[in-house]
Amino acid sequence: MEVKIREVGPRDGLQNEKEIVSTEAKIEWINQLVNTGLPYIELTSFVHAKWIPALADASEVVKGVKRSPHVTFGALVPNEYGLERALEAGIDEVAVFLSTSETHNQKNINKTIDKTLPVIKNVVTQAKAAKKTVRGYVSTVFGCPYEGTVNVDKVLSISTALMEMGVDEISLGDTIGIATPNQIENTIRKVATYIPLSRIALHPHDTSGTALANVYAAYKLGVRAFDGSVGGLGGCPYAKGASGNVATEDMIYMFNGMNIDTQVDLEKMTECAVWIQKKLKRPLPSHRLQVALAEKK
Amino acid sequence: MEVKIREVGPRDGLQNEKEIVSTEAKIEWINQLVNTGLPYIELTSFVHAKWIPALADASEVVKGVKRSPHVTFGALVPNEYGLERALEAGIDEVAVFLSTSETHNQKNINKTIDKTLPVIKNVVTQAKAAKKTVRGYVSTVFGCPYEGTVNVDKVLSISTALMEMGVDEISLGDTIGIATPNQIENTIRKVATYIPLSRIALHPHDTSGTALANVYAAYKLGVRAFDGSVGGLGGCPYAKGASGNVATEDMIYMFNGMNIDTQVDLEKMTECAVWIQKKLKRPLPSHRLQVALAEKK
Repeated sequence: MEVKIREVGPRDGLQNEKEIVSTEAKIEWINQLVNTGLPYIELTSFVHAKWIPALADASEVVKGVKRSPHVTFGALVPNEYGLERALEAGIDEVAVFLSTSETHNQKNINKTIDKTLPVIKNVVTQAKAAKKTVRGYVSTVFGCPYEGTVNVDKVLSISTALMEMGVDEISLGDTIGIATPNQIENTIRKVATYIPLSRIALHPHDTSGTALANVYAAYKLGVRAFDGSVGGLGGCPYAKGASGNVATEDMIYMFNGMNIDTQVDLEKMTECAVWIQKKLKRPLPSHRLQVALAEKK
Repeated sequence: MEVKIREVGPRDGLQNEKEIVSTEAKIEWINQLVNTGLPYIELTSFVHAKWIPALADASEVVKGVKRSPHVTFGALVPNEYGLERALEAGIDEVAVFLSTSETHNQKNINKTIDKTLPVIKNVVTQAKAAKKTVRGYVSTVFGCPYEGTVNVDKVLSISTALMEMGVDEISLGDTIGIATPNQIENTIRKVATYIPLSRIALHPHDTSGTALANVYAAYKLGVRAFDGSVGGLGGCPYAKGASGNVATEDMIYMFNGMNIDTQVDLEKMTECAVWIQKKLKRPLPSHRLQVALAEKK
């Protein structure tokens, strides 16, 4: 495996969907995702059901899915209580998260960045004590819907703070999908002077059509981990017109074309996109999904 | 102007649309496009109305649009009769076209490649005699819906044949939108050993979501001319699920983010996309258009 694709659809993708997907359907779909060869699937989020009702069944989902030795199952964990639930459910990897911009962090987590960091530190310490790996999501790295441009030094200070806590990998998020390749290069070059490239992932959204250009630019710099969402599910509730995460199958299509091994079966992945589009009853933004549907007609 | 954007929406974009756009509406829309700062607009095609009924008003459109010293007006010309009509209407630049694959050429032009070349040569010679610049479209460069992979040597032999006829610029078309960045690099590197980079343009379609990644890869190699279609209009009638050309405004968004001057006003360009989407009564694939519409809500 030259590039590690992390599938975040069941969490990042479903969290804002209006159409409720039943727990049974989620489990069936995730089992299909397991069969694609994906090395990582982010199953859900252990935030309070009040904040994300669509993921209130977090424990049932984690307990219900089929285990496979080749897949790591992850979940978002906001605090100590979430961690307890995640560990009890049997998660493999814990994901913590915060924003580089105060306003976005306040809206998303309801705390200042300074007050978020100790909460995260506590989660990381306890997750490590429980022998779990931890990834850290850094949001709004390339721009914030409220504050606009984000200073690279802010990205750097938050990323290194996470690393010092013991986080294994940081995922740099283009949360509202506004980055262009040069920005990816500038930011990653700077972050990589302090954090090894092997511990940096890119989390692109495709609001502006630049997602795969950004993936390509990051790959050229040496990044080898990328987050995608099957079907291009996802979005940011705070940014108007923000379409979803980059579609996992579009990313795999590009890597296949470049003869870069991801261990993921493109056809099976596209079938998972077809399946969830039917459930959600709305056309998803994934390009290869739409090609597959047109070819079936 | 560091990068030259060639707008092909009024021709490549409208030729397959079901919704008929009136001549008056086309002229109004093209006049708006002229005001964006675009250096080139391909207005129409002088093929027989039997083949492309949507562009049967070619002469009226060319005669009806507002002239501006900063814009070159082009049109597709398939043969001597088409050239006569184009010159009579007052076109600035002539565009000739053929495919790298026999089957696609046969379906599109109804001739073998060998029989197409002398027809093109005649058009180029006469256009040059009339002091017109000529661009040559090479289609299915990165793959054909019928024949699959296309040999780079075939691309090279057709491109050099066009250059020897006196064509000023060749435009390499990813007609069905299947290219990935490495393919762009391999093909352009090879073609550029025979033809100066300053005379090579890329014509991307976004069927697979890779269009801007391909633009970025070509830019990095030194290509400075790119064809786009406002709103992401367009498509290929012979390839299932083939979505449109890359949206001009998405391309400009990326170049703006990279501080690369195109002389095109992104906001005005996006307004032209909003305008034509309303006329065509279907959501167009352009990303920045959809952001603009969401922000208006």
